[in-house]
Amino acid sequence: MTTPHGSIDTPQFMPVGTQATVKSLTPSDLRTAGAQIILGNTYHLSLRPGAERVAGLGGLHRFMAWDGPILTDSGGFQVFSLADLRRVDDDGVTFASHLDGSLQRLTPERSVEIQELLGSDIAMAFDQLVDPGLPAVEVGEAMERTHRWAERCLAAHTRPDQALFGIIQGGVDASLRQRSTAAIAALPFDGIAVGGLSVGESKAQMAATLDVVADALDDDPRVRYLMGVGSPLDFFTGVERGIDLFDCVLPTRVARNGQLWTREGRLNLRNARFVDDPAPLDAECGCETCRDYSRAYLAHLFRAEELLAYRLASLHNLTYTLDLMRAIRAALADGSFESLRETVAGQYQRAESRPVSQQ
Amino acid sequence: MTTPHGSIDTPQFMPVGTQATVKSLTPSDLRTAGAQIILGNTYHLSLRPGAERVAGLGGLHRFMAWDGPILTDSGGFQVFSLADLRRVDDDGVTFASHLDGSLQRLTPERSVEIQELLGSDIAMAFDQLVDPGLPAVEVGEAMERTHRWAERCLAAHTRPDQALFGIIQGGVDASLRQRSTAAIAALPFDGIAVGGLSVGESKAQMAATLDVVADALDDDPRVRYLMGVGSPLDFFTGVERGIDLFDCVLPTRVARNGQLWTREGRLNLRNARFVDDPAPLDAECGCETCRDYSRAYLAHLFRAEELLAYRLASLHNLTYTLDLMRAIRAALADGSFESLRETVAGQYQRAESRPVSQQ
Repeated sequence: MTTPHGSIDTPQFMPVGTQATVKSLTPSDLRTAGAQIILGNTYHLSLRPGAERVAGLGGLHRFMAWDGPILTDSGGFQVFSLADLRRVDDDGVTFASHLDGSLQRLTPERSVEIQELLGSDIAMAFDQLVDPGLPAVEVGEAMERTHRWAERCLAAHTRPDQALFGIIQGGVDASLRQRSTAAIAALPFDGIAVGGLSVGESKAQMAATLDVVADALDDDPRVRYLMGVGSPLDFFTGVERGIDLFDCVLPTRVARNGQLWTREGRLNLRNARFVDDPAPLDAECGCETCRDYSRAYLAHLFRAEELLAYRLASLHNLTYTLDLMRAIRAALADGSFESLRETVAGQYQRAESRPVSQQ
Repeated sequence: MTTPHGSIDTPQFMPVGTQATVKSLTPSDLRTAGAQIILGNTYHLSLRPGAERVAGLGGLHRFMAWDGPILTDSGGFQVFSLADLRRVDDDGVTFASHLDGSLQRLTPERSVEIQELLGSDIAMAFDQLVDPGLPAVEVGEAMERTHRWAERCLAAHTRPDQALFGIIQGGVDASLRQRSTAAIAALPFDGIAVGGLSVGESKAQMAATLDVVADALDDDPRVRYLMGVGSPLDFFTGVERGIDLFDCVLPTRVARNGQLWTREGRLNLRNARFVDDPAPLDAECGCETCRDYSRAYLAHLFRAEELLAYRLASLHNLTYTLDLMRAIRAALADGSFESLRETVAGQYQRAESRPVSQQ
């Protein structure tokens, strides 16, 4: 997959840089961890520092000093997560800013405009996400609105150096997902995203929904992006159903809480057993954290609430995640995908059997 | 000046790594910023993670992955700053831990033992610091106790690979300082420190006290360390009075509050004028922060309370401070010390005319 700021090996994971920074890390750290593309958030950046301000400062790449590809989301997910603070109409969404309570307005046209001002390599259509547990008629209405907004995003989009991806909605209802896939795939988007998952549904529902989408897309050659996913095992679920791109705050968020992903499974550094452990987090990992520090040191930093804890843990979890995606690509090439999945499942499945809410 | 972990150019500034980390930075960052030696805190490290634990993990250098020289303080200053939570007797100090309120005991012998367990290159004698504004009799009593404790520290010290420095006390009273200097200089310490300054006295009092010490030390060849100082102009005050070593949390603490030290003077990044400023913090600085980011980006990170703000600001302020120390060394060599001081004073003196409390 190619973009104006470089090409991307797929399947690929995108670290999330919500506020023009992947929390605690520099672009140089991200490169070292293996990142090829990162994600920025339209909702957050439009409120602060403001899309026009970022454009005036030379665009998001220059602003945050990341010269690789950037994908921006459309704001749809964040508006959904504001819950009671928003009002949706056919033209767009009015919501109260989480920063100062001021009323803000996002429409398909404004979302596209913001993303063009930010100058991302890949923009996302503005969609309406709903709780998949709502009655089918409500899920269906949001889906139909998402389709109308998709056409308005395409009409509003002007930057020839920026790709625009459509988003499939429809909750976990197979017939709605099928209709949404057909509707979005019929439009001239540069890529196709699956939205509305990883918001409380079960692992089985996520897999079944991805099956429906994969069937309906059939041999559509465009890049496929599963939004807001995931965890180590979710990548296998997605990749075997044709997913090329993933993003999730999970690796960095859990890192800041002291949960480290390793080839021995999850380690919680707040557990007392680590305070005297001289071993590295993961003996097979090549990141700076594993090279230079013991579990005991990291356990100390977390207890002392030292800023370096969040940085070293984030660097490791991203390295782990990007190493895993690279291993998945290699396994696809040499036919060892199932064997790799079994290895990773042995490390992670027990902790992943519960329903997830990862964003 | 040489230590088991490398030699040090003097005059030199030591970044403070209170809890086995210079907040938000890695040893690699410190090297890049120009650090040759760092400081660790006996009080904090003995409470958490514990000196015996650090020793069991291979010592402080290995624990925090810094292979250069380390100086540890003795705990005297932190115990002083606990104010009402401590009780001093002739044998030592009993105090309540700031972590859990548990009663703890520090004596000259235990302070030396902790520092030997940590394995620092330079240990400090355990002293009794008092407010220099107290009546002379109280300042004098604490000074006399400091002298008795100095002898006990020397008697307790066993590591041949660790230097031990004595500490001069005596507040801002010239006759007490003179007596303390003579008493400490008469003992076989490897270096001489000036304690009890930068705790609320005026700039003029600090300078006058350093004059007294310099006169009393005369041509004593040992390394001289001014504890807990300082700010850009304080370095000149100290260096012209023979000081070789400085340490202070000021550069990193003010950095985390958004105050950046530059060749244009202090910049407060929380000031609204920076949110659209595309310039680097300091066009003459070679640090990563100045190379890659604008003031506008840093102003955004501080407003968004992003972890990267504290890291990039700390890296810059330490680079600035260590660059300044290097410039002072060069100025001493080529006779331009006064001209350099005038340049820096033009940038900083207005903000430094008030009394300071820097630790």
